[in-house]
Amino acid sequence: MGDLLGVAVLGAGHMGADHIRRVDQVVSGARVVAVADPDTDRAKEAVAGLDAVTVHEDAVAALDAAGVEAVLIASPGPAHEEALLAAFARGLPVLCEKPMVPDSTGALRVVEAEARLGRRLAQIGFMRRYDAEYQRLKSLLDSGQLGRPLMLHCTHRNVSSPPYFTSAMLIDSSVSHEIDAARWLLGQELTAVTVLSPRSSANAPEGLLDPQLVLFETDGGALVDVEVFVNCGFGYQVRCEAVCESGSARIGDDHTMVVTTRGSTHEDVPLDYLVRFADAYDREVQSWVDATRQGLVTGPSVWDGYASSAVAEAGVRALDSGGRVAVELAPRPDLYGNVSR
Amino acid sequence: MGDLLGVAVLGAGHMGADHIRRVDQVVSGARVVAVADPDTDRAKEAVAGLDAVTVHEDAVAALDAAGVEAVLIASPGPAHEEALLAAFARGLPVLCEKPMVPDSTGALRVVEAEARLGRRLAQIGFMRRYDAEYQRLKSLLDSGQLGRPLMLHCTHRNVSSPPYFTSAMLIDSSVSHEIDAARWLLGQELTAVTVLSPRSSANAPEGLLDPQLVLFETDGGALVDVEVFVNCGFGYQVRCEAVCESGSARIGDDHTMVVTTRGSTHEDVPLDYLVRFADAYDREVQSWVDATRQGLVTGPSVWDGYASSAVAEAGVRALDSGGRVAVELAPRPDLYGNVSR
Amino acid sequence: MGDLLGVAVLGAGHMGADHIRRVDQVVSGARVVAVADPDTDRAKEAVAGLDAVTVHEDAVAALDAAGVEAVLIASPGPAHEEALLAAFARGLPVLCEKPMVPDSTGALRVVEAEARLGRRLAQIGFMRRYDAEYQRLKSLLDSGQLGRPLMLHCTHRNVSSPPYFTSAMLIDSSVSHEIDAARWLLGQELTAVTVLSPRSSANAPEGLLDPQLVLFETDGGALVDVEVFVNCGFGYQVRCEAVCESGSARIGDDHTMVVTTRGSTHEDVPLDYLVRFADAYDREVQSWVDATRQGLVTGPSVWDGYASSAVAEAGVRALDSGGRVAVELAPRPDLYGNVSR
Amino acid sequence: MGDLLGVAVLGAGHMGADHIRRVDQVVSGARVVAVADPDTDRAKEAVAGLDAVTVHEDAVAALDAAGVEAVLIASPGPAHEEALLAAFARGLPVLCEKPMVPDSTGALRVVEAEARLGRRLAQIGFMRRYDAEYQRLKSLLDSGQLGRPLMLHCTHRNVSSPPYFTSAMLIDSSVSHEIDAARWLLGQELTAVTVLSPRSSANAPEGLLDPQLVLFETDGGALVDVEVFVNCGFGYQVRCEAVCESGSARIGDDHTMVVTTRGSTHEDVPLDYLVRFADAYDREVQSWVDATRQGLVTGPSVWDGYASSAVAEAGVRALDSGGRVAVELAPRPDLYGNVSR
Repeated sequence: MGDLLGVAVLGAGHMGADHIRRVDQVVSGARVVAVADPDTDRAKEAVAGLDAVTVHEDAVAALDAAGVEAVLIASPGPAHEEALLAAFARGLPVLCEKPMVPDSTGALRVVEAEARLGRRLAQIGFMRRYDAEYQRLKSLLDSGQLGRPLMLHCTHRNVSSPPYFTSAMLIDSSVSHEIDAARWLLGQELTAVTVLSPRSSANAPEGLLDPQLVLFETDGGALVDVEVFVNCGFGYQVRCEAVCESGSARIGDDHTMVVTTRGSTHEDVPLDYLVRFADAYDREVQSWVDATRQGLVTGPSVWDGYASSAVAEAGVRALDSGGRVAVELAPRPDLYGNVSR
Repeated sequence: MGDLLGVAVLGAGHMGADHIRRVDQVVSGARVVAVADPDTDRAKEAVAGLDAVTVHEDAVAALDAAGVEAVLIASPGPAHEEALLAAFARGLPVLCEKPMVPDSTGALRVVEAEARLGRRLAQIGFMRRYDAEYQRLKSLLDSGQLGRPLMLHCTHRNVSSPPYFTSAMLIDSSVSHEIDAARWLLGQELTAVTVLSPRSSANAPEGLLDPQLVLFETDGGALVDVEVFVNCGFGYQVRCEAVCESGSARIGDDHTMVVTTRGSTHEDVPLDYLVRFADAYDREVQSWVDATRQGLVTGPSVWDGYASSAVAEAGVRALDSGGRVAVELAPRPDLYGNVSR
Repeated sequence: MGDLLGVAVLGAGHMGADHIRRVDQVVSGARVVAVADPDTDRAKEAVAGLDAVTVHEDAVAALDAAGVEAVLIASPGPAHEEALLAAFARGLPVLCEKPMVPDSTGALRVVEAEARLGRRLAQIGFMRRYDAEYQRLKSLLDSGQLGRPLMLHCTHRNVSSPPYFTSAMLIDSSVSHEIDAARWLLGQELTAVTVLSPRSSANAPEGLLDPQLVLFETDGGALVDVEVFVNCGFGYQVRCEAVCESGSARIGDDHTMVVTTRGSTHEDVPLDYLVRFADAYDREVQSWVDATRQGLVTGPSVWDGYASSAVAEAGVRALDSGGRVAVELAPRPDLYGNVSR
Repeated sequence: MGDLLGVAVLGAGHMGADHIRRVDQVVSGARVVAVADPDTDRAKEAVAGLDAVTVHEDAVAALDAAGVEAVLIASPGPAHEEALLAAFARGLPVLCEKPMVPDSTGALRVVEAEARLGRRLAQIGFMRRYDAEYQRLKSLLDSGQLGRPLMLHCTHRNVSSPPYFTSAMLIDSSVSHEIDAARWLLGQELTAVTVLSPRSSANAPEGLLDPQLVLFETDGGALVDVEVFVNCGFGYQVRCEAVCESGSARIGDDHTMVVTTRGSTHEDVPLDYLVRFADAYDREVQSWVDATRQGLVTGPSVWDGYASSAVAEAGVRALDSGGRVAVELAPRPDLYGNVSR
């Protein structure tokens, strides 16, 4: 083991503080050397007990702090573009939480900036690609054993949504995970989207369209349907069934402990995504640290971040219009050769 | 046990012969007394070994044969309307295989004829209502425990389709089962349908759109999506997940024997609907015999048969047009008070 | 269909009344013509609504009633030997509920009587052999695909035991099902038995050793362990895992409807054996009627009944002694060539 | 994060090299500073690429190397006693792979040595206690929700055994995991053991008794049965079902990806324990590092290591004698108050 990779963490909120803990306690080979948050008290609290960490109000100042070799961006989405461009300007490798940039125009600027550099510096935080079940499914589809994928049936359920959640956020926040997962699993771009809304659940807040059924078409002729239901009340469930020409494969119905009590067998369903995907977050950051220490950039690219924004925007327009909306993507720079890499 | 109910079976093809065997060997309380088929040799073969059965070329002649107290219609769909009306004219209780009448105009004439009689004589052969798993799901939904149903996710897969199968038949023959099941499970009428076709499987015959994703909207604000895939190659699978306001319930993933051999556990998937639904067919005919012997008519009504035809027709138009097609139903006669009865 | 087989039912208690209903309403090809029970009021009640049935206080009188062509014995165990011998004397085919004869000495007299006749007349009511899951397991083991069976792990759980239940009855009443199932599945005789009793459940009645772990050795070198727990409180569960040289197979964890509500997925577990094995009872009686009408005798033989009694007796001695007890069987008459036939 | 904990690893074979990799790449907060192995070439290979690690032929020399703050013992079992006592003499915290000391006399000497110190220094490598499923089961049993545990049904299957494996090693090497797991899950000591051997599998090497059924009794009146089958050929399977007074709970049937191809659904079964328990090993070492850095000793104690040896020895005697063998334990020093801590 060489020296520990010096990481600047931007943002010390819920996600940022969790990543600080992860780099400190879970991930080997890295250490936090700088943290930035406009609320410096919050930042100080997040690094309490750590040695030799500088705290900054300004994100750019943190990038310039002593010992910073890489950047983990966990600030709010609107701050991402500036932080990414600043990291690119300094040649610093970046792990950027999703959404990379909330609007696709800004996202495209990031793509263009990195393409101008001519080498990848950024890994985007689509952590489902690091989940063991998704990896198994991807690997099975890539093997060709089941033939060409024809449809993906996806379920995305949360117990309840936060108070600020809007109908559009079911698509551009929740379903954005499925957008990336579908692109990655299929190795195809999404070309059109349709949104159907049944009568909303009585448990959804007044005015929120929940659940929704979101349908994607792909440039490979596949269909993807997503049930998104963020006030389902009964659990955090993420499932995906790939229907292929000669077989189907399903993840997300993981059995663990089966308990039998009077008249029924039951199994726990996690109530929180941190429970379900705890290992995926760890693997994601570990693999970023490992690659960075070898001078490599792997994982989801800024092109993936851009494509995800563009599809989500089309999805919100489909929700508003009630019809099918085509997705228009800018030409893909050569740097990002393959959608599913 | 009183005397055995005397049944005339119309049609001695695959389905008719199976029903003759069922009445003879499986069902208690009934016996076959007359059989009609234009191919009288086939009819004779189907009743070989049975005592006291008359064979007729003409369906109406069979209805008038001695000892006939009830009619089981298993002839081809286009012959159903005439047979139903003839049975009504004679006051004979009928069990009629699906489709009741293939076109919704003819189906509506049957509804009107029975409504004029003022009492039900016909039970339609939607045998999923007699499947133990569907009954469990219906009973759970009706209990209200899970709140209002918001969506049904349905899967309907066949190993392969017969040579004469058309893209429209995926809807009006295969999905017609889900049409009735959705109406019955939800107690709602279907109001619009949209059909999406991904690039067809390489295993589908040239020109057949297979699989398809069929979307129904209901007058209760629910959504129903159906994956229909009739050349999936891997098994006969019928599944249904009801997503409700406070829970979900899924049928069709029945475990039976779990076998573990090198590196994997596996379970059989039936390759044929007769395996999966064998008991449902038995229960269906038994319950018709039991009700008939008590002078009652229960089970799916001719209204259900008509509604199913009307929805299937709209589905085929949606397939052709590529858009959403609204379903128009005639007013429901009082005789058929409640969709889900 | 020829004439209906005329059946005399001996015993009109819980089991007898259920069999009367089954012959009348479920099974095709047979009718009840005579019923015997010392409590003739109970017998009359059990046949209310049936035509042309004679009611008798005495079992032998019922055998001699007009129209009797076959006998179904559902009287208490101690009455079975006399009834079986009387049926043999009249050449009447018999379906006899388990235990065939409670003590192995009496059971052996029945074996010898039938062997003297030189043809089989009796089928014993080990209905697990007619259960679809057991049949699938038997068929897999017989195929040789998994190699030689080495162990059977069995579970037999009841919600609660009736008040008269004794520690010995856990073996000679409950485990007697596994005794026959193990002999049949393996095609081997059981040669020794050991019983271990953990500290009893607080939910077991005072003085009842419940649960118990019963271990059988076989003449083919296999081991069978049975957890019997008759006051488990949580469900009626019958499971069997066969561990073989190159794979294992498990039945009894049947999934049906999977319901997800807050924080867990659950499935029903039946609370009663009549729910779990309803179809097996129907198939058992139907197959007896079918065979009888063709002049055949199939299914579990009186040798199976005898062997079961002998093993159960050894089991009770093992429970009393705390040690291993060898099973001694009389020589098997040629009539019953093969243990697993 | 403070400084990294300096660890000496004793043994650089399969397990030792894996732990070196783990401390270096997976676990945060620790680094390898010294390695000992009689085969110093092997040790050098295991630390290739690591900075500042000293390599020693002699275990005690490694303990005295600069920077050593804690010891991970992964040398062969017979070397453990000396290494443990040397670590105790230097006041160094230890993580010692199982078996702690292969014979129970030596194991007891370790217990007495630590008891004389008056504080715990050693954690024993029973890594199942760190497996997420076992932890869930332990936590459920401790909650009391299911009442008192009455039986544990355990399965321990390996694909194949190494060439040097003996019948006794099925017990003192394989089943030793279940010995500790049962003691920990139940919070009870094991008091007697019986071993039954069916006719061995044709796939077991000549002369090896495989599979075996091992039965344990506990001082709390529970029974534990273990199927151990080390040449099962079909997978690495570790399962445990706890049967309690008012419910049962089962782990080890974990579903992950369900694949459906022609005629069957199947799921992977791991072929290797490193796949199944990868996370448990990581958690074990991480939790030792975390505790050690806080000056604490947690996890399985040397008493647990001793009790496991003593039970395994009794098991081997039971295998040899064919009867029940009681387990005799020395008095438990106060330092190890509670079996299940």
